[in-house]
Amino acid sequence: MNSAILLDLLGIALFAATGALSASRKELDIIGFLFLATVTGIGGGTARDLILGVPVFWVEQPLYILICAVTAAGVFFTAHLLESRYRLLLWLDAVALAAYGVFGAYKGLLVTGSPIIAVVMGMLTGTLGGILRDVLAGEPSVLMRKEIYITAVLAGGLIYVATSLAGLALPLAAGAGFAVALFIRSGALAFGWS
Amino acid sequence: MNSAILLDLLGIALFAATGALSASRKELDIIGFLFLATVTGIGGGTARDLILGVPVFWVEQPLYILICAVTAAGVFFTAHLLESRYRLLLWLDAVALAAYGVFGAYKGLLVTGSPIIAVVMGMLTGTLGGILRDVLAGEPSVLMRKEIYITAVLAGGLIYVATSLAGLALPLAAGAGFAVALFIRSGALAFGWS
Amino acid sequence: MNSAILLDLLGIALFAATGALSASRKELDIIGFLFLATVTGIGGGTARDLILGVPVFWVEQPLYILICAVTAAGVFFTAHLLESRYRLLLWLDAVALAAYGVFGAYKGLLVTGSPIIAVVMGMLTGTLGGILRDVLAGEPSVLMRKEIYITAVLAGGLIYVATSLAGLALPLAAGAGFAVALFIRSGALAFGWS
Repeated sequence: MNSAILLDLLGIALFAATGALSASRKELDIIGFLFLATVTGIGGGTARDLILGVPVFWVEQPLYILICAVTAAGVFFTAHLLESRYRLLLWLDAVALAAYGVFGAYKGLLVTGSPIIAVVMGMLTGTLGGILRDVLAGEPSVLMRKEIYITAVLAGGLIYVATSLAGLALPLAAGAGFAVALFIRSGALAFGWS
Repeated sequence: MNSAILLDLLGIALFAATGALSASRKELDIIGFLFLATVTGIGGGTARDLILGVPVFWVEQPLYILICAVTAAGVFFTAHLLESRYRLLLWLDAVALAAYGVFGAYKGLLVTGSPIIAVVMGMLTGTLGGILRDVLAGEPSVLMRKEIYITAVLAGGLIYVATSLAGLALPLAAGAGFAVALFIRSGALAFGWS
Repeated sequence: MNSAILLDLLGIALFAATGALSASRKELDIIGFLFLATVTGIGGGTARDLILGVPVFWVEQPLYILICAVTAAGVFFTAHLLESRYRLLLWLDAVALAAYGVFGAYKGLLVTGSPIIAVVMGMLTGTLGGILRDVLAGEPSVLMRKEIYITAVLAGGLIYVATSLAGLALPLAAGAGFAVALFIRSGALAFGWS
């Protein structure tokens, strides 16, 4: 398993978990958990693949749907144990944003070869799942919060694309992009960077 | 005309009617009726076809747009006669959800052969039109209501896929899926099942 | 540069400016400006190309992304000088609606040859960017305002398609559609036509 696949799975599973936590906050039933987890988990990647003109990843490999479903079920049976579901949602969303954003930039670069498209694809892939989650749950979008959000995924994508074009090996370039994005978003969450 | 086409037309026309009823509640002009009816009528199927990678149905056959337009006009001239437009909207939405959800599962199975994708496509096709309608009209999404909604379309899709793979003829499998989905959603509406 | 390309660039740049003005109203940082400007600028055309089954325009030509970025930066450094950002947003949106709506009809007709699809594509291309902008910024959709909106883009598309099929040269047909759409929407804004 290469490092890109790792970011892909991490992003999808964690975004699915944030969708399930959102369902928990809205006191939906288990089907609501499955639905919101799946839409959040696969939303960004679906738009990415459509725009890139490649087959949608989960239509090719339904296993991704099962990952979302299992994650949703896990959250369904444990979320009531948490003290602050929204706090956890924000932190999982931060890791997912960093991972899935870099994976989006990776796939965008792979398919088009254009650094600009790669960076835009990273932002789109990283943010769309969360946007759909918030719109569907009727909550204010995480994008509109005061502290830094989009900047983190943009920086991660830029670092990945720049180091990758400079010849850095995939695990290092992907790791650097992920670390930078996560560092920025974590600082925003922990210290209110804005 | 086979039974799948019947479900397709039923779903599109009724979803269009719910969009028009939503426009009526918002006191839009006739163009607003046409717009909201068309988006609601063709929204779910459009996303389904894009994700499946097949030509979008109404681009191939513009007649579907005319069905939405005629439905919108019909509602425009009669909706003021109704006592409760929202009640009617919910019931038409229920039949449309059942019909279009099963048709989505049918098309998903036809194109990909995967039962998982078929069930997901059923849910997507059945729910997206209503989601777009509610987001555009600025109303709380029907998905977030307390009583059962997504479960109905999921059950209908599962029944259709299971009976279809078991060898049941199309009219029977489609009819069974439709009946189950409508039964569950009707119970939710009539008796508040949740 | 033919007249269709002019409408395309005008629509994208002005929609991007409205997205940036919306970011300014929400007091977002410069990255928020870039994001909202880009989504608003390219949103309608992206959906149009996906539905028509042609390559997405900005994936083919990343220059469009740069146009949105430059526009966003320009608004970022000047928007605080304005007395009423929302008023300007509405007027830029009017010109963008007229330009991009006619370009959408032009491309729809070019690709499918169907007048109905062309008119629908004009409406979709003209309105979707603004819808995404308002949904993301959490503001009431411009579509739901009392004064005429969708009617303007519909009329512009109809005029373009009719005059174009009647054999009028592209600059004249496109100019006529643009002028009619802008006239109607301007009247709505200036005199409250509804």
